[in-house]
Amino acid sequence: MSNWVVLGSGNVATQFARMLSQHKHKIMQVYSPSLSRARDLAKLHPPAEATQHIDKINKTADYYLIAVSDNAIRDIVAQLDKDIAGTILHTSGATDMQVLEKFSRYGVLYPLQTIHKNQDVDYSTLPLAVEGNGSSISQELLTIANSISKHVYQYNSKQRLAAHVAAIFVNNFTNSLFQVAYDILKEQDMPFEIVNPLIEKTAKAALSNIPKDVQTGPAARNDNQTIQKHLDFLKGNIERERLYRILTEEIKKQQNKPTKI
Amino acid sequence: MSNWVVLGSGNVATQFARMLSQHKHKIMQVYSPSLSRARDLAKLHPPAEATQHIDKINKTADYYLIAVSDNAIRDIVAQLDKDIAGTILHTSGATDMQVLEKFSRYGVLYPLQTIHKNQDVDYSTLPLAVEGNGSSISQELLTIANSISKHVYQYNSKQRLAAHVAAIFVNNFTNSLFQVAYDILKEQDMPFEIVNPLIEKTAKAALSNIPKDVQTGPAARNDNQTIQKHLDFLKGNIERERLYRILTEEIKKQQNKPTKI
Repeated sequence: MSNWVVLGSGNVATQFARMLSQHKHKIMQVYSPSLSRARDLAKLHPPAEATQHIDKINKTADYYLIAVSDNAIRDIVAQLDKDIAGTILHTSGATDMQVLEKFSRYGVLYPLQTIHKNQDVDYSTLPLAVEGNGSSISQELLTIANSISKHVYQYNSKQRLAAHVAAIFVNNFTNSLFQVAYDILKEQDMPFEIVNPLIEKTAKAALSNIPKDVQTGPAARNDNQTIQKHLDFLKGNIERERLYRILTEEIKKQQNKPTKI
Repeated sequence: MSNWVVLGSGNVATQFARMLSQHKHKIMQVYSPSLSRARDLAKLHPPAEATQHIDKINKTADYYLIAVSDNAIRDIVAQLDKDIAGTILHTSGATDMQVLEKFSRYGVLYPLQTIHKNQDVDYSTLPLAVEGNGSSISQELLTIANSISKHVYQYNSKQRLAAHVAAIFVNNFTNSLFQVAYDILKEQDMPFEIVNPLIEKTAKAALSNIPKDVQTGPAARNDNQTIQKHLDFLKGNIERERLYRILTEEIKKQQNKPTKI
Protein backbone atom coordinates (compact mmCIF):
# COMPACT_ATOMS: atom_id res chain seq x y z
CA MET A 1 0.00 0.00 0.00
CA SER A 2 1.24 3.50 -0.69
CA ASN A 3 1.64 6.92 0.92
CA TRP A 4 -0.44 9.83 -0.31
CA VAL A 5 -0.61 13.59 -0.01
CA VAL A 6 -4.06 14.99 -0.79
CA LEU A 7 -4.15 18.56 -2.12
CA GLY A 8 -7.65 19.92 -1.67
CA SER A 9 -10.41 19.63 0.91
CA GLY A 10 -13.61 19.68 -1.15
CA ASN A 11 -15.98 16.97 -2.36
CA VAL A 12 -13.54 15.06 -4.56
CA ALA A 13 -10.59 15.37 -2.13
CA THR A 14 -12.76 14.17 0.76
CA GLN A 15 -14.13 11.18 -1.14
CA PHE A 16 -10.74 10.17 -2.57
CA ALA A 17 -9.15 10.35 0.90
CA ARG A 18 -11.90 8.10 2.24
CA MET A 19 -11.67 5.68 -0.68
CA LEU A 20 -7.87 5.43 -0.38
CA SER A 21 -8.00 4.97 3.41
CA GLN A 22 -10.60 2.24 3.05
CA HIS A 23 -8.18 0.41 0.80
CA LYS A 24 -5.33 0.65 3.31
CA HIS A 25 -3.45 3.46 1.63
CA LYS A 26 -1.94 5.97 4.03
CA ILE A 27 -2.89 9.65 3.85
CA MET A 28 0.30 11.37 5.09
CA GLN A 29 -0.81 14.95 4.67
CA VAL A 30 -3.69 17.16 3.56
CA TYR A 31 -3.01 20.55 1.99
CA SER A 32 -5.58 23.31 1.74
CA PRO A 33 -5.18 27.11 1.67
CA SER A 34 -7.69 26.98 4.54
CA LEU A 35 -5.92 25.38 7.52
CA SER A 36 -9.18 24.59 9.28
CA ARG A 37 -10.48 22.69 6.25
CA ALA A 38 -7.15 20.86 5.87
CA ARG A 39 -7.37 19.89 9.57
CA ASP A 40 -10.99 18.75 9.27
CA LEU A 41 -10.08 16.35 6.50
CA ALA A 42 -6.71 15.27 8.00
CA LYS A 43 -8.22 14.30 11.34
CA LEU A 44 -10.50 11.80 9.59
CA HIS A 45 -7.38 9.96 8.41
CA PRO A 46 -4.85 9.71 11.21
CA PRO A 47 -1.90 10.10 11.29
CA ALA A 48 -2.41 12.58 8.40
CA GLU A 49 -1.09 16.07 9.06
CA ALA A 50 -2.60 19.32 7.83
CA THR A 51 -0.84 22.21 6.15
CA GLN A 52 -1.82 25.42 4.45
CA HIS A 53 1.71 26.05 3.12
CA ILE A 54 2.46 24.42 -0.19
CA ASP A 55 6.23 24.61 0.49
CA LYS A 56 5.67 22.49 3.60
CA ILE A 57 4.41 19.60 1.57
CA ASN A 58 6.03 16.29 2.42
CA LYS A 59 8.48 15.27 -0.31
CA THR A 60 8.53 11.54 0.45
CA ALA A 61 5.02 10.46 -0.57
CA ASP A 62 4.36 8.00 -3.38
CA TYR A 63 1.40 9.96 -4.77
CA TYR A 64 0.23 13.58 -4.72
CA LEU A 65 -3.46 13.86 -5.55
CA ILE A 66 -4.47 17.33 -6.75
CA ALA A 67 -8.23 17.29 -6.14
CA VAL A 68 -9.20 20.95 -6.48
CA SER A 69 -11.45 22.94 -8.79
CA ASP A 70 -10.24 22.90 -12.40
CA ASN A 71 -9.32 26.57 -12.31
CA ALA A 72 -6.99 26.07 -9.33
CA ILE A 73 -4.95 23.17 -10.78
CA ARG A 74 -2.44 25.29 -12.72
CA ASP A 75 -1.78 27.47 -9.73
CA ILE A 76 -0.98 24.46 -7.52
CA VAL A 77 1.18 22.90 -10.22
CA ALA A 78 3.15 26.17 -10.54
CA GLN A 79 3.86 26.20 -6.81
CA LEU A 80 4.77 22.51 -6.40
CA ASP A 81 8.45 21.57 -6.52
CA LYS A 82 9.13 19.99 -9.91
CA ASP A 83 11.68 17.62 -8.40
CA ILE A 84 9.12 15.71 -6.35
CA ALA A 85 9.94 12.04 -6.90
CA GLY A 86 6.42 10.70 -6.36
CA THR A 87 3.65 10.59 -8.93
CA ILE A 88 1.52 13.74 -9.31
CA LEU A 89 -2.13 13.12 -10.17
CA HIS A 90 -5.11 15.30 -10.88
CA THR A 91 -8.79 14.27 -10.82
CA SER A 92 -10.28 16.52 -13.46
CA GLY A 93 -12.31 15.41 -16.48
CA ALA A 94 -11.82 18.56 -18.49
CA THR A 95 -8.09 19.08 -17.81
CA ASP A 96 -5.42 17.61 -20.06
CA MET A 97 -2.84 15.39 -18.36
CA GLN A 98 -0.08 17.52 -19.89
CA VAL A 99 -0.81 20.30 -17.40
CA LEU A 100 1.40 18.13 -15.13
CA GLU A 101 4.29 17.73 -17.57
CA LYS A 102 6.86 19.61 -15.49
CA PHE A 103 6.97 16.62 -13.14
CA SER A 104 8.77 13.40 -13.95
CA ARG A 105 5.89 11.06 -13.01
CA TYR A 106 2.27 12.07 -13.48
CA GLY A 107 -1.21 10.90 -14.37
CA VAL A 108 -4.95 11.26 -13.84
CA LEU A 109 -7.57 9.53 -11.69
CA TYR A 110 -10.99 10.80 -12.79
CA PRO A 111 -14.27 9.75 -11.15
CA LEU A 112 -17.14 9.75 -13.66
CA GLN A 113 -19.75 10.71 -11.13
CA THR A 114 -20.81 13.81 -9.25
CA ILE A 115 -19.75 13.12 -5.68
CA HIS A 116 -20.61 15.13 -2.63
CA LYS A 117 -18.38 14.98 0.42
CA ASN A 118 -21.22 14.02 2.76
CA GLN A 119 -22.64 11.24 0.63
CA ASP A 120 -22.02 7.58 1.23
CA VAL A 121 -20.56 6.37 -2.05
CA ASP A 122 -20.28 2.71 -2.99
CA TYR A 123 -16.83 3.03 -4.52
CA SER A 124 -17.04 -0.41 -6.10
CA THR A 125 -19.59 0.98 -8.58
CA LEU A 126 -17.88 4.35 -9.13
CA PRO A 127 -16.54 4.54 -12.69
CA LEU A 128 -12.87 5.57 -12.60
CA ALA A 129 -10.93 6.67 -15.68
CA VAL A 130 -7.13 6.53 -15.43
CA GLU A 131 -4.37 7.96 -17.59
CA GLY A 132 -0.65 7.68 -16.87
CA ASN A 133 2.38 9.29 -18.44
CA GLY A 134 3.91 6.07 -19.74
CA SER A 135 2.78 2.49 -19.44
CA SER A 136 4.34 1.74 -16.07
CA ILE A 137 2.52 4.63 -14.40
CA SER A 138 -0.70 3.66 -16.20
CA GLN A 139 -0.28 0.13 -14.88
CA GLU A 140 0.22 1.34 -11.30
CA LEU A 141 -2.89 3.53 -11.53
CA LEU A 142 -4.94 0.71 -13.05
CA THR A 143 -3.91 -1.56 -10.17
CA ILE A 144 -4.94 1.02 -7.58
CA ALA A 145 -8.22 1.84 -9.39
CA ASN A 146 -9.11 -1.83 -9.92
CA SER A 147 -8.65 -2.50 -6.22
CA ILE A 148 -11.29 0.18 -5.52
CA SER A 149 -13.86 -0.08 -8.32
CA LYS A 150 -15.27 -2.68 -10.65
CA HIS A 151 -15.63 -0.05 -13.40
CA VAL A 152 -12.16 1.12 -14.38
CA TYR A 153 -11.32 2.53 -17.79
CA GLN A 154 -8.04 3.65 -19.32
CA TYR A 155 -8.68 6.80 -21.34
CA ASN A 156 -6.53 9.51 -22.85
CA SER A 157 -7.14 13.19 -22.18
CA LYS A 158 -9.36 13.69 -25.24
CA GLN A 159 -11.52 10.72 -24.25
CA ARG A 160 -11.74 12.00 -20.71
CA LEU A 161 -12.90 15.37 -21.99
CA ALA A 162 -15.50 13.58 -24.16
CA ALA A 163 -16.69 11.68 -21.07
CA HIS A 164 -16.92 14.96 -19.18
CA VAL A 165 -18.97 16.59 -21.94
CA ALA A 166 -21.21 13.50 -22.15
CA ALA A 167 -21.69 13.71 -18.39
CA ILE A 168 -22.79 17.34 -18.75
CA PHE A 169 -25.46 16.23 -21.23
CA VAL A 170 -26.81 13.31 -19.18
CA ASN A 171 -26.62 15.04 -15.81
CA ASN A 172 -26.46 18.85 -15.83
CA PHE A 173 -28.61 19.43 -18.91
CA THR A 174 -31.09 16.70 -18.06
CA ASN A 175 -31.51 18.15 -14.60
CA SER A 176 -32.15 21.61 -16.06
CA LEU A 177 -34.98 20.09 -18.16
CA PHE A 178 -36.38 18.57 -14.97
CA GLN A 179 -36.44 22.09 -13.52
CA VAL A 180 -38.32 23.43 -16.56
CA ALA A 181 -40.91 20.67 -16.06
CA TYR A 182 -41.06 21.47 -12.35
CA ASP A 183 -41.83 25.11 -13.11
CA ILE A 184 -44.42 24.30 -15.79
CA LEU A 185 -46.27 22.04 -13.35
CA LYS A 186 -45.95 24.43 -10.42
CA GLU A 187 -47.53 27.24 -12.44
CA GLN A 188 -50.61 25.01 -12.86
CA ASP A 189 -50.62 23.97 -9.17
CA MET A 190 -49.43 20.47 -9.96
CA PRO A 191 -46.78 18.54 -8.01
CA PHE A 192 -43.54 17.46 -9.70
CA GLU A 193 -44.14 13.95 -8.33
CA ILE A 194 -46.66 13.25 -11.11
CA VAL A 195 -43.74 12.89 -13.55
CA ASN A 196 -41.55 10.86 -11.17
CA PRO A 197 -42.48 7.48 -12.65
CA LEU A 198 -41.68 8.88 -16.09
CA ILE A 199 -38.26 10.14 -14.94
CA GLU A 200 -37.43 6.74 -13.49
CA LYS A 201 -38.63 4.95 -16.59
CA THR A 202 -36.68 7.24 -18.92
CA ALA A 203 -33.44 6.59 -17.01
CA LYS A 204 -34.07 2.86 -16.86
CA ALA A 205 -34.79 2.57 -20.58
CA ALA A 206 -31.52 4.33 -21.45
CA LEU A 207 -29.47 1.86 -19.41
CA SER A 208 -30.21 -1.08 -21.65
CA ASN A 209 -30.85 0.51 -25.05
CA ILE A 210 -29.47 2.93 -27.59
CA PRO A 211 -31.47 6.01 -26.51
CA LYS A 212 -32.80 6.88 -29.95
CA ASP A 213 -34.25 3.36 -30.29
CA VAL A 214 -36.57 3.96 -27.33
CA GLN A 215 -37.49 7.55 -28.22
CA THR A 216 -41.23 8.27 -27.99
CA GLY A 217 -43.39 11.38 -28.30
CA PRO A 218 -44.62 13.78 -30.97
CA ALA A 219 -41.20 14.66 -32.41
CA ALA A 220 -40.28 11.00 -32.93
CA ARG A 221 -43.71 10.38 -34.51
CA ASN A 222 -43.41 13.56 -36.57
CA ASP A 223 -46.77 14.61 -35.05
CA ASN A 224 -46.62 18.32 -35.86
CA GLN A 225 -50.18 18.94 -34.69
CA THR A 226 -49.31 18.00 -31.10
CA ILE A 227 -46.02 19.89 -31.33
CA GLN A 228 -47.99 22.98 -32.33
CA LYS A 229 -50.33 22.58 -29.35
CA HIS A 230 -47.32 22.44 -27.05
CA LEU A 231 -45.76 25.51 -28.65
CA ASP A 232 -49.06 27.36 -28.23
CA PHE A 233 -49.09 26.36 -24.57
CA LEU A 234 -45.50 27.64 -24.10
CA LYS A 235 -46.18 30.88 -25.98
CA GLY A 236 -44.99 33.94 -24.08
CA ASN A 237 -42.03 32.16 -22.47
CA ILE A 238 -39.32 32.66 -25.06
CA GLU A 239 -36.69 30.47 -23.39
CA ARG A 240 -39.04 27.50 -22.99
CA GLU A 241 -40.34 27.85 -26.51
CA ARG A 242 -36.77 27.97 -27.85
CA LEU A 243 -35.77 24.90 -25.82
CA TYR A 244 -38.83 23.06 -27.06
CA ARG A 245 -38.10 23.90 -30.69
CA ILE A 246 -34.41 23.03 -30.58
CA LEU A 247 -34.88 19.74 -28.73
CA THR A 248 -37.75 18.80 -31.03
CA GLU A 249 -35.48 19.44 -34.01
CA GLU A 250 -32.76 17.35 -32.34
CA ILE A 251 -35.13 14.39 -31.91
CA LYS A 252 -36.35 14.68 -35.51
CA LYS A 253 -32.76 14.72 -36.72
CA GLN A 254 -31.93 11.66 -34.59
CA GLN A 255 -35.00 9.88 -35.99
CA ASN A 256 -34.35 10.98 -39.59
CA LYS A 257 -37.59 12.94 -39.80
CA PRO A 258 -38.00 16.27 -41.60
CA THR A 259 -36.76 18.77 -39.02
CA LYS A 260 -39.12 21.58 -39.97
CA ILE A 261 -41.74 22.22 -37.24
CA MET B 1 -68.51 -3.12 -12.47
CA SER B 2 -69.27 -1.57 -15.84
CA ASN B 3 -69.41 -2.37 -19.55
CA TRP B 4 -66.90 -0.83 -21.91
CA VAL B 5 -66.31 -0.36 -25.62
CA VAL B 6 -62.67 0.27 -26.50
CA LEU B 7 -62.02 2.28 -29.65
CA GLY B 8 -58.44 1.70 -30.74
CA SER B 9 -56.01 -1.21 -30.77
CA GLY B 10 -52.63 0.39 -30.06
CA ASN B 11 -50.49 0.70 -26.92
CA VAL B 12 -52.90 2.75 -24.83
CA ALA B 13 -56.04 0.83 -25.94
CA THR B 14 -54.33 -2.49 -25.20
CA GLN B 15 -53.13 -1.45 -21.76
CA PHE B 16 -56.46 0.15 -20.78
CA ALA B 17 -58.35 -2.98 -21.87
CA ARG B 18 -56.05 -5.09 -19.71
CA MET B 19 -56.27 -2.74 -16.75
CA LEU B 20 -60.08 -2.61 -16.94
CA SER B 21 -60.39 -6.39 -17.30
CA GLN B 22 -58.10 -6.95 -14.32
CA HIS B 23 -60.48 -4.84 -12.28
CA LYS B 24 -63.52 -6.87 -13.36
CA HIS B 25 -64.87 -4.41 -15.88
CA LYS B 26 -66.29 -6.03 -18.98
CA ILE B 27 -64.91 -5.20 -22.43
CA MET B 28 -67.98 -5.65 -24.67
CA GLN B 29 -66.42 -4.64 -27.95
CA VAL B 30 -63.21 -3.45 -29.59
CA TYR B 31 -63.33 -1.16 -32.59
CA SER B 32 -60.42 -0.65 -34.98
CA PRO B 33 -60.35 0.26 -38.69
CA SER B 34 -58.18 -2.86 -38.95
CA LEU B 35 -60.42 -5.86 -38.23
CA SER B 36 -57.48 -8.14 -37.54
CA ARG B 37 -56.11 -5.77 -34.91
CA ALA B 38 -59.57 -5.36 -33.37
CA ARG B 39 -59.85 -9.16 -33.22
CA ASP B 40 -56.37 -9.58 -31.69
CA LEU B 41 -57.30 -7.29 -28.85
CA ALA B 42 -60.89 -8.53 -28.43
CA LYS B 43 -59.87 -12.16 -28.10
CA LEU B 44 -57.71 -11.28 -25.06
CA HIS B 45 -60.90 -10.12 -23.31
CA PRO B 46 -63.72 -12.59 -23.92
CA PRO B 47 -66.58 -12.19 -24.59
CA ALA B 48 -65.50 -8.94 -26.32
CA GLU B 49 -66.46 -8.70 -29.97
CA ALA B 50 -64.46 -7.02 -32.71
CA THR B 51 -65.67 -4.57 -35.32
CA GLN B 52 -64.16 -2.36 -37.96
CA HIS B 53 -67.41 -0.49 -38.61
CA ILE B 54 -68.04 2.46 -36.38
CA ASP B 55 -71.79 2.31 -37.07
CA LYS B 56 -71.81 -1.22 -35.62
CA ILE B 57 -70.71 -0.01 -32.25
CA ASN B 58 -72.78 -1.34 -29.39
CA LYS B 59 -75.06 1.42 -28.02
CA THR B 60 -75.62 -0.11 -24.57
CA ALA B 61 -72.19 0.24 -22.97
CA ASP B 62 -71.55 2.37 -19.91
CA TYR B 63 -68.26 3.77 -21.24
CA TYR B 64 -66.67 4.32 -24.64
CA LEU B 65 -62.92 4.72 -24.40
CA ILE B 66 -61.38 6.48 -27.40
CA ALA B 67 -57.73 5.41 -27.15
CA VAL B 68 -56.31 6.37 -30.54
CA SER B 69 -53.62 8.75 -31.75
CA ASP B 70 -54.44 12.40 -31.01
CA ASN B 71 -54.93 13.18 -34.68
CA ALA B 72 -57.59 10.49 -35.06
CA ILE B 73 -59.80 11.53 -32.14
CA ARG B 74 -61.83 14.18 -33.99
CA ASP B 75 -62.54 11.80 -36.84
CA ILE B 76 -63.90 9.14 -34.48
CA VAL B 77 -65.95 11.71 -32.57
CA ALA B 78 -67.47 12.95 -35.84
CA GLN B 79 -68.55 9.42 -36.77
CA LEU B 80 -69.92 8.37 -33.38
CA ASP B 81 -73.66 8.74 -32.77
CA LYS B 82 -74.16 11.80 -30.56
CA ASP B 83 -77.14 10.14 -28.84
CA ILE B 84 -75.04 7.45 -27.18
CA ALA B 85 -76.25 7.30 -23.58
CA GLY B 86 -72.97 6.07 -22.06
CA THR B 87 -69.98 8.20 -21.14
CA ILE B 88 -67.47 8.97 -23.91
CA LEU B 89 -63.84 9.20 -22.78
CA HIS B 90 -60.56 9.98 -24.47
CA THR B 91 -57.07 9.24 -23.13
CA SER B 92 -55.04 12.10 -24.59
CA GLY B 93 -52.87 14.53 -22.65
CA ALA B 94 -52.79 17.20 -25.32
CA THR B 95 -56.47 17.11 -26.31
CA ASP B 96 -59.06 19.33 -24.66
CA MET B 97 -62.03 17.53 -23.10
CA GLN B 98 -64.36 19.81 -25.11
CA VAL B 99 -63.56 17.88 -28.28
CA LEU B 100 -66.23 15.50 -26.89
CA GLU B 101 -68.89 18.14 -26.23
CA LYS B 102 -71.41 16.84 -28.75
CA PHE B 103 -72.12 13.95 -26.38
CA SER B 104 -74.20 14.30 -23.23
CA ARG B 105 -71.73 12.54 -20.91
CA TYR B 106 -67.97 12.76 -21.44
CA GLY B 107 -64.60 12.93 -19.78
CA VAL B 108 -60.91 12.03 -19.91
CA LEU B 109 -58.73 9.26 -18.45
CA TYR B 110 -55.11 10.15 -19.11
CA PRO B 111 -52.14 7.93 -18.15
CA LEU B 112 -49.06 10.00 -17.33
CA GLN B 113 -46.62 7.43 -18.57
CA THR B 114 -45.40 6.13 -21.88
CA ILE B 115 -46.88 2.65 -22.12
CA HIS B 116 -46.11 0.01 -24.64
CA LYS B 117 -48.65 -2.70 -25.39
CA ASN B 118 -46.20 -5.53 -24.71
CA GLN B 119 -44.91 -4.22 -21.40
CA ASP B 120 -46.01 -5.50 -18.04
CA VAL B 121 -47.26 -2.40 -16.28
CA ASP B 122 -47.89 -2.20 -12.55
CA TYR B 123 -51.10 -0.22 -12.84
CA SER B 124 -51.15 0.57 -9.14
CA THR B 125 -48.20 2.94 -9.70
CA LEU B 126 -49.44 4.40 -13.00
CA PRO B 127 -50.38 8.06 -12.53
CA LEU B 128 -53.89 8.65 -13.91
CA ALA B 129 -55.37 12.10 -14.47
CA VAL B 130 -59.15 12.32 -14.75
CA GLU B 131 -61.49 15.04 -15.93
CA GLY B 132 -65.27 14.76 -16.16
CA ASN B 133 -67.91 16.99 -17.66
CA GLY B 134 -69.66 17.76 -14.40
CA SER B 135 -69.01 16.58 -10.88
CA SER B 136 -70.99 13.35 -11.05
CA ILE B 137 -69.02 12.11 -14.05
CA SER B 138 -65.77 13.25 -12.40
CA GLN B 139 -66.75 11.30 -9.31
CA GLU B 140 -67.45 8.13 -11.31
CA LEU B 141 -64.10 8.43 -13.10
CA LEU B 142 -62.26 9.05 -9.84
CA THR B 143 -63.83 5.92 -8.37
CA ILE B 144 -62.78 3.82 -11.34
CA ALA B 145 -59.25 5.33 -11.43
CA ASN B 146 -58.76 4.97 -7.67
CA SER B 147 -59.66 1.30 -7.87
CA ILE B 148 -56.82 0.84 -10.38
CA SER B 149 -54.03 3.19 -9.27
CA LYS B 150 -52.69 4.73 -6.09
CA HIS B 151 -51.76 7.90 -8.00
CA VAL B 152 -54.93 9.53 -9.26
CA TYR B 153 -55.26 13.24 -9.95
CA GLN B 154 -58.20 15.37 -11.03
CA TYR B 155 -56.99 17.91 -13.57
CA ASN B 156 -58.65 20.19 -16.07
CA SER B 157 -57.68 20.25 -19.73
CA LYS B 158 -55.10 23.03 -19.33
CA GLN B 159 -53.43 21.19 -16.46
CA ARG B 160 -53.42 17.99 -18.47
CA LEU B 161 -51.74 19.80 -21.34
CA ALA B 162 -49.17 21.20 -18.88
CA ALA B 163 -48.52 17.67 -17.61
CA HIS B 164 -48.08 16.49 -21.18
CA VAL B 165 -45.60 19.26 -21.96
CA ALA B 166 -43.75 18.54 -18.70
CA ALA B 167 -43.61 14.88 -19.69
CA ILE B 168 -42.04 15.85 -23.03
CA PHE B 169 -39.29 17.70 -21.14
CA VAL B 170 -38.51 14.93 -18.64
CA ASN B 171 -38.83 12.05 -21.08
CA ASN B 172 -38.52 12.90 -24.78
CA PHE B 173 -36.01 15.74 -24.45
CA THR B 174 -33.98 14.04 -21.74
CA ASN B 175 -33.73 10.94 -23.89
CA SER B 176 -32.52 13.01 -26.86
CA LEU B 177 -29.72 14.38 -24.65
CA PHE B 178 -28.82 10.80 -23.75
CA GLN B 179 -28.48 10.12 -27.47
CA VAL B 180 -26.16 13.12 -27.91
CA ALA B 181 -23.99 11.74 -25.09
CA TYR B 182 -24.11 8.29 -26.68
CA ASP B 183 -22.83 9.70 -29.97
CA ILE B 184 -20.10 11.83 -28.33
CA LEU B 185 -18.79 8.74 -26.50
CA LYS B 186 -19.09 6.46 -29.50
CA GLU B 187 -16.99 8.81 -31.61
CA GLN B 188 -14.18 8.37 -29.04
CA ASP B 189 -14.65 4.57 -28.86
CA MET B 190 -16.18 4.75 -25.41
CA PRO B 191 -19.23 2.77 -24.23
CA PHE B 192 -22.40 4.57 -23.15
CA GLU B 193 -22.37 2.44 -19.97
CA ILE B 194 -19.71 4.69 -18.42
CA VAL B 195 -22.39 7.32 -17.82
CA ASN B 196 -25.03 4.84 -16.60
CA PRO B 197 -24.38 5.46 -12.90
CA LEU B 198 -24.68 9.18 -13.57
CA ILE B 199 -28.01 8.76 -15.38
CA GLU B 200 -29.38 6.73 -12.48
CA LYS B 201 -28.11 9.21 -9.94
CA THR B 202 -29.54 12.19 -11.83
CA ALA B 203 -32.99 10.59 -11.94
CA LYS B 204 -32.84 9.58 -8.30
CA ALA B 205 -31.81 13.05 -7.12
CA ALA B 206 -34.73 14.65 -8.96
CA LEU B 207 -37.26 12.41 -7.22
CA SER B 208 -36.67 13.87 -3.79
CA ASN B 209 -35.51 17.43 -4.51
CA ILE B 210 -36.33 20.57 -6.42
CA PRO B 211 -34.09 19.92 -9.46
CA LYS B 212 -32.33 23.28 -9.41
CA ASP B 213 -31.28 22.69 -5.77
CA VAL B 214 -29.22 19.67 -6.79
CA GLN B 215 -27.79 21.17 -9.98
CA THR B 216 -24.04 20.65 -10.37
CA GLY B 217 -21.49 21.36 -13.10
CA PRO B 218 -19.71 24.29 -14.72
CA ALA B 219 -22.84 26.30 -15.59
CA ALA B 220 -24.15 26.14 -12.01
CA ARG B 221 -20.69 27.13 -10.71
CA ASN B 222 -20.39 29.84 -13.38
CA ASP B 223 -17.10 28.18 -14.40
CA ASN B 224 -16.71 29.76 -17.83
CA GLN B 225 -13.23 28.32 -18.35
CA THR B 226 -14.57 24.75 -18.33
CA ILE B 227 -17.56 25.76 -20.42
CA GLN B 228 -15.14 27.15 -23.00
CA LYS B 229 -13.17 23.88 -23.04
CA HIS B 230 -16.38 21.99 -23.71
CA LEU B 231 -17.40 24.38 -26.49
CA ASP B 232 -13.95 23.96 -28.06
CA PHE B 233 -14.40 20.19 -27.89
CA LEU B 234 -17.82 20.45 -29.60
CA LYS B 235 -16.58 22.88 -32.26
CA GLY B 236 -17.57 21.81 -35.76
CA ASN B 237 -20.86 20.24 -34.70
CA ILE B 238 -23.21 23.19 -34.87
CA GLU B 239 -26.25 21.42 -33.37
CA ARG B 240 -24.34 20.13 -30.35
CA GLU B 241 -22.66 23.46 -29.79
CA ARG B 242 -26.05 25.21 -29.94
CA LEU B 243 -27.61 22.72 -27.53
CA TYR B 244 -24.68 23.16 -25.16
CA ARG B 245 -24.96 26.96 -25.23
CA ILE B 246 -28.72 27.10 -24.78
CA LEU B 247 -28.83 24.56 -21.95
CA THR B 248 -25.89 26.23 -20.23
CA GLU B 249 -27.77 29.54 -20.42
CA GLU B 250 -30.86 27.82 -19.04
CA ILE B 251 -28.93 26.48 -16.02
CA LYS B 252 -27.34 29.87 -15.38
CA LYS B 253 -30.75 31.50 -15.50
CA GLN B 254 -32.16 28.90 -13.10
CA GLN B 255 -29.21 29.50 -10.75
CA ASN B 256 -29.38 33.30 -11.08
CA LYS B 257 -25.91 33.54 -12.63
CA PRO B 258 -24.94 35.92 -15.43
CA THR B 259 -26.10 34.09 -18.54
CA LYS B 260 -23.34 35.32 -20.84
CA ILE B 261 -20.93 32.50 -21.79
